[in-house]
Amino acid sequence: MFKFELLKTAKDSKARLGKITTPHGDIETPIFMPVGTRATVKTMTPHEVKDLGAQIILSNTYHLFLKPGMDIIEKAGGLHKFMQWDGPILTDSGGFQVFSLSDSRKITEEGVSFRSHIDGSLKFLSPEISMDIQHTLGSDIMMAFDECAPYPATYEYIEDSMMRTTRWAQRCKDHHHNENQALFGIVQGGMYKDLREISAKDLVAMDFPGYAVGGLSVGEPLELMEEILDFTTDFLPEDKPRYLMGVGSPDYLFEAVERGIDMADCVLPTRIARNGTIMTSKGKLVVKNAAYKEDFRPLDETCGCYTCRNFSRAYVRHLFNTDEILGLRLATIHNLHFLIHLMEDIRESIREDRFLEFKDDFYREYGYNK
Amino acid sequence: MFKFELLKTAKDSKARLGKITTPHGDIETPIFMPVGTRATVKTMTPHEVKDLGAQIILSNTYHLFLKPGMDIIEKAGGLHKFMQWDGPILTDSGGFQVFSLSDSRKITEEGVSFRSHIDGSLKFLSPEISMDIQHTLGSDIMMAFDECAPYPATYEYIEDSMMRTTRWAQRCKDHHHNENQALFGIVQGGMYKDLREISAKDLVAMDFPGYAVGGLSVGEPLELMEEILDFTTDFLPEDKPRYLMGVGSPDYLFEAVERGIDMADCVLPTRIARNGTIMTSKGKLVVKNAAYKEDFRPLDETCGCYTCRNFSRAYVRHLFNTDEILGLRLATIHNLHFLIHLMEDIRESIREDRFLEFKDDFYREYGYNK
Repeated sequence: MFKFELLKTAKDSKARLGKITTPHGDIETPIFMPVGTRATVKTMTPHEVKDLGAQIILSNTYHLFLKPGMDIIEKAGGLHKFMQWDGPILTDSGGFQVFSLSDSRKITEEGVSFRSHIDGSLKFLSPEISMDIQHTLGSDIMMAFDECAPYPATYEYIEDSMMRTTRWAQRCKDHHHNENQALFGIVQGGMYKDLREISAKDLVAMDFPGYAVGGLSVGEPLELMEEILDFTTDFLPEDKPRYLMGVGSPDYLFEAVERGIDMADCVLPTRIARNGTIMTSKGKLVVKNAAYKEDFRPLDETCGCYTCRNFSRAYVRHLFNTDEILGLRLATIHNLHFLIHLMEDIRESIREDRFLEFKDDFYREYGYNK
Repeated sequence: MFKFELLKTAKDSKARLGKITTPHGDIETPIFMPVGTRATVKTMTPHEVKDLGAQIILSNTYHLFLKPGMDIIEKAGGLHKFMQWDGPILTDSGGFQVFSLSDSRKITEEGVSFRSHIDGSLKFLSPEISMDIQHTLGSDIMMAFDECAPYPATYEYIEDSMMRTTRWAQRCKDHHHNENQALFGIVQGGMYKDLREISAKDLVAMDFPGYAVGGLSVGEPLELMEEILDFTTDFLPEDKPRYLMGVGSPDYLFEAVERGIDMADCVLPTRIARNGTIMTSKGKLVVKNAAYKEDFRPLDETCGCYTCRNFSRAYVRHLFNTDEILGLRLATIHNLHFLIHLMEDIRESIREDRFLEFKDDFYREYGYNK
């Protein structure tokens, strides 16, 4: 059921245009995937997410494993039915959250034991358990169980971690048994090029239907991310989709696409929205600022989203200043619309062989110095 | 512009069917008015509120006076434009919140000085200021500035308070100058029938286009409210709408309509929704309860709202258990839909001369002992 078609590679960069086919629909790439951590894209109904033009969402194995737990998801008939999202879903492996959220982690070859960040209870995740959970969730794209190593970290730590992630990837592949769910491998190796090369080659040899680049955008400078990413994607097959995990600011998305990335996800647009930070064509706007008190223009004057078609900065500011949930909703709608449409524009620019030109124009308007 | 037509009075009770015309549209009565305290019905967009079938909303003078303040509302072109609700709006006078929310109140004949519950700053409201604010808000129905006296209270307190409220009503009328905004008087008098009679007669003599019954549903037993309400409505003219303030549970709405009330409002359905308490045809359902963990039925099996058409109790429970805003939204949508459609059914039952029969059936299903 899973298929990737490479429709075009840009002349001016490694940017690519493609199409992914899944049991729940097609996805045009490059794509930004909104995150629905706990079976909901925060503040949004699934129908609103679809209306915004989202073609795939991401959901989190770790969070759903803890709450509501797999019993309930199984009885609901899988995650799509539980949350009423009928489009494609990508689930992560749980690895990232185990390493970033939980307490008292202990990593062994077998897997990771940890304490739940919710109630402190002892839990265990392994490649096999992650596969079982993702089988129950029924996502269209599953991720291999990996360690997302911290930055900075020593060569020795990253080498050990990456080699174990590769062994875990093989165990995931061996345990994976649902042909309606595509399993992606995750390239690790930190900021060390030789380790990235080994990781990529080993995973490619296992022949996954898609590859993620993990362990980037973890605190390193943008330039370093660009360098490692540029280096890594050269080892990935042309005919498989490439997914950069945890990236959602406009500049990171542009730089990723330029280096041959097809998919990205991040909580950033929805999280900053709930803080009142708005992404606009002219850069970020902090709507709570007094400057917008009597500003009756839309959040972004060039935007056609529901929020911008209907409401003023002054009104959205009032909602934030009075802790009204509608404020969180209107900002979330706008930021997701902004990124989803940015990716549409990026695809269009690749199609028309003017990706780098579009990037330069965007950066100038947005106020990026690059 | 403001008009009330009495279309029918029931044979089995004092229940009435009517139509109110306002500059922003018509309202079928009896009607329940959702509350949008701070220029938003909590968690909802104005378009969603309209889609639920709401024909009028209520907004609060006190809250809007403090935040965002009248400067901003005036520059926005009024409350309708500020919040993008194009239907009728009723604004209260600010009196109730001054007496229930603020600190250091001091009542004089001139008005009430108080400290803002937000920042402790000293504020002053009077009949004239309340009118000025409501003129700026541009509501279709304005309320006279009154004191909503506490329960219980002595005869002397209520007599003083009611007489002052009546004098304030005259000052409101004298200061009111926008013919596109109808000004309602508010009958007070606590639980003392003779005071209610005096209040009603004095206000009716001033010839307002509508009358509210205030100072009920303030803690007294339901039976006492019924008795006082029944007594009071007999002194109100047949050809003017009657509004019972602060009532929003199904039984109170039925009992109010039975006694000749045409309009009611309350934060109850939206407030309990945000606590996870769901109004259903079979009584209240506390969706956080463990009983609904694996219950994949809709909140109310007979309901056709967006929430019930799409989501299960298990999913809504999961959203509440993980503090997801979508849970608050789905519960709010359902409860408002429930009350709005209950009022539709009540109107239908009056039209078909079976109001009391419908009430009995509803009470039996809902589990009310009456």
